[in-house]
Amino acid sequence: MEADLQTLAQKVVERCGALARLSEEEGRLTRTFLCPAMREAHRMLAGWMEALGMEVRIDAVGNLIGRYPGQKPDAPLFLLGSHVDTVRDAGPYDGVLGVVLALALVEALGGERLPWALEVIAFSEEEGVRFGVPFLGSKAAAGRFEAGLLERKDAQGLSLAEAIRAFGLDPGQIPQAAYQPHRVRGYLEFHIEQGPVLESLGYPLGVVEAIVGQSRLELSFLGQAGHAGTTPMPLRRDALAGAAEWITWVEREARETPGLVATVGRIAALPGVANVIPGEVRLSLDVRHADDQVRAHAVAHLVGRAQQVALRRGLELAYQTLHEQPAVPCDPQLREALAQAVEAQGYPPYRMVSGAGHDAMVMASLCPVAMLFLRSPRGLSHHPEESVWPQDVAAALRVGLHFLRRLGGEYA
Amino acid sequence: MEADLQTLAQKVVERCGALARLSEEEGRLTRTFLCPAMREAHRMLAGWMEALGMEVRIDAVGNLIGRYPGQKPDAPLFLLGSHVDTVRDAGPYDGVLGVVLALALVEALGGERLPWALEVIAFSEEEGVRFGVPFLGSKAAAGRFEAGLLERKDAQGLSLAEAIRAFGLDPGQIPQAAYQPHRVRGYLEFHIEQGPVLESLGYPLGVVEAIVGQSRLELSFLGQAGHAGTTPMPLRRDALAGAAEWITWVEREARETPGLVATVGRIAALPGVANVIPGEVRLSLDVRHADDQVRAHAVAHLVGRAQQVALRRGLELAYQTLHEQPAVPCDPQLREALAQAVEAQGYPPYRMVSGAGHDAMVMASLCPVAMLFLRSPRGLSHHPEESVWPQDVAAALRVGLHFLRRLGGEYA
Repeated sequence: MEADLQTLAQKVVERCGALARLSEEEGRLTRTFLCPAMREAHRMLAGWMEALGMEVRIDAVGNLIGRYPGQKPDAPLFLLGSHVDTVRDAGPYDGVLGVVLALALVEALGGERLPWALEVIAFSEEEGVRFGVPFLGSKAAAGRFEAGLLERKDAQGLSLAEAIRAFGLDPGQIPQAAYQPHRVRGYLEFHIEQGPVLESLGYPLGVVEAIVGQSRLELSFLGQAGHAGTTPMPLRRDALAGAAEWITWVEREARETPGLVATVGRIAALPGVANVIPGEVRLSLDVRHADDQVRAHAVAHLVGRAQQVALRRGLELAYQTLHEQPAVPCDPQLREALAQAVEAQGYPPYRMVSGAGHDAMVMASLCPVAMLFLRSPRGLSHHPEESVWPQDVAAALRVGLHFLRRLGGEYA
Repeated sequence: MEADLQTLAQKVVERCGALARLSEEEGRLTRTFLCPAMREAHRMLAGWMEALGMEVRIDAVGNLIGRYPGQKPDAPLFLLGSHVDTVRDAGPYDGVLGVVLALALVEALGGERLPWALEVIAFSEEEGVRFGVPFLGSKAAAGRFEAGLLERKDAQGLSLAEAIRAFGLDPGQIPQAAYQPHRVRGYLEFHIEQGPVLESLGYPLGVVEAIVGQSRLELSFLGQAGHAGTTPMPLRRDALAGAAEWITWVEREARETPGLVATVGRIAALPGVANVIPGEVRLSLDVRHADDQVRAHAVAHLVGRAQQVALRRGLELAYQTLHEQPAVPCDPQLREALAQAVEAQGYPPYRMVSGAGHDAMVMASLCPVAMLFLRSPRGLSHHPEESVWPQDVAAALRVGLHFLRRLGGEYA
């Protein structure tokens, strides 16, 4: 059995590699929502599902679902899954690993029936690349798909509804893609960590306690452009000097607040010429924490700091909140069952937060969810060199099997 | 006479406005080196020169020169001038004012002959817009025109030599455009301050002591891009956080060093996405001071600070010096004669440095130079709202007349 899991882990890695060759772009992996390469990926995944005796279906938003029956025909459902769309110039594992690993778990069960029917979902959309809105797949599955989304247009001017029809599906059927909450026992997602924490600790796996909440703001400091040679320092209202001072405050706030991350990722100084004092700086702020109150306090504090900096320097500050996403805790029972499985298989049951959004975040509105992270070498993700260790995949398979069997025994 | 100078000052302002309508772009003032609008400007200026009885010529680099004879046919020369090219979307006074004001001085002389022949030069190029190299006009006049410049190409792929020929001039004659140093007593340039200092002090005029030296550097901080959600603060190597810390040092260094200005005008953070920690930041540094040693020390100090910041944060620093321009002092004798003229006419003889380069900087390699700044309302320049007060133009005319007559008396 153990030798089988090692072999299966290797197969998981190879299958992720095979799927990574199905791309809409030459020479790199880009597979956005319902692009032609998505159909090829479906064909490949469906073949693997059918070989395991699973019933395969595709819902109206393009989620590919394989069903592995339970002990009884009317057994409730336990869901496994992740997404099979990618960012541009992606790596092979983000999303895809969770689907392929779930199929390997079904394979490892070797026909053993559980009190639950398992459904493995390959969500059609999570990254938000094609239509600028993420989680289209899990929104439909969770019954959270807003009808207005269908009118969104991609870069070619094609609407979401048209894209679905062009793929041979009926957008009118999206409401039927939603699971009925009372039928679903839970959802488990395997995903690469996409960060450096597990590697820095030397742990293969991490049990996700919560997916952080997120605030996204846009700020601008408005000063006075001026000649870099003829404007003495005391007469300047340099927007970039003010923004720089504030960025040092952003970093300090996050360093001093446990669990907080705060990032200025985008900055533009105008006019942006070497010999002109910047009259305006626009920048982004991204703040995340597992506790919404801590996050709200940090955001308020940083906006207050920006106002102080602006006031003292004679700058004007403008800001707006572009996006607020509350934190989503994982289900305490499933999470602890997962942690016990990790420990039982001999790994440190390290509990951590997910700093990124995942389908599990949306599925949490449908049913109890749990997530298991696999170590990300060099913390890389959204990058062609994104990778995963085969031995960590084997560890995840051991833990997944233990979890499913124990969950079956305890709650059947 | 005084009423005449007020009227003349008003005429100067009107003439600058008339020249500002000669543009190569619809709806805004852009007049680059030897563009068709430059020919119209020459025609207008030449008309005014001829009306004053001046001999008009154009040299091989397109400088338009009007000659006002001295008391004797072989009188040495005193030069007045500035440039008549502009930046894109320029204001009406930068450069042009110095030429039109010099013609008004000749008009104010009303036929009175001085021990010097006056030549008023409308330099064809100072801003460096068309060929990316400034001071083409004054370089030719000062005998500093490097032949290699003729091969430079404009945005249309036309070489400088071809542009000169297309204007009907012979680039082979550029060496003959150079004045003979022993024939030239000095050069005086009137120019708007292009900064806020005189306005902040309430002074109409400023006597330039020196044109600052300048260092232009490009720096980059190289860290590690990473996911803004999944990378905890202690595991980050955030290039923008490092750059921001350094920018605060740049500002502090300049504030603490009298007369120093230091500016970060350009910044780019890569990849420049709100949810990605910047892995690289590229920025510009512009440092100016009238004392080259002070400037060199400040640059070395700021580079050292950048190295410290990078080392402490695990970033890599790269930098290169793009441009080094030594400071150019004005001639002490001419400068003091100018300051005395300012004081004699009842204005505070405020001495200041020029933070920007001017034709006088290049002419200083030919002959003694002096510069008089006129107050810039709101410190604006290189901007369509750039302006000048007519009463400050009248003040400059009073001072200029006093200076020319006294200079005639003292050194004839």
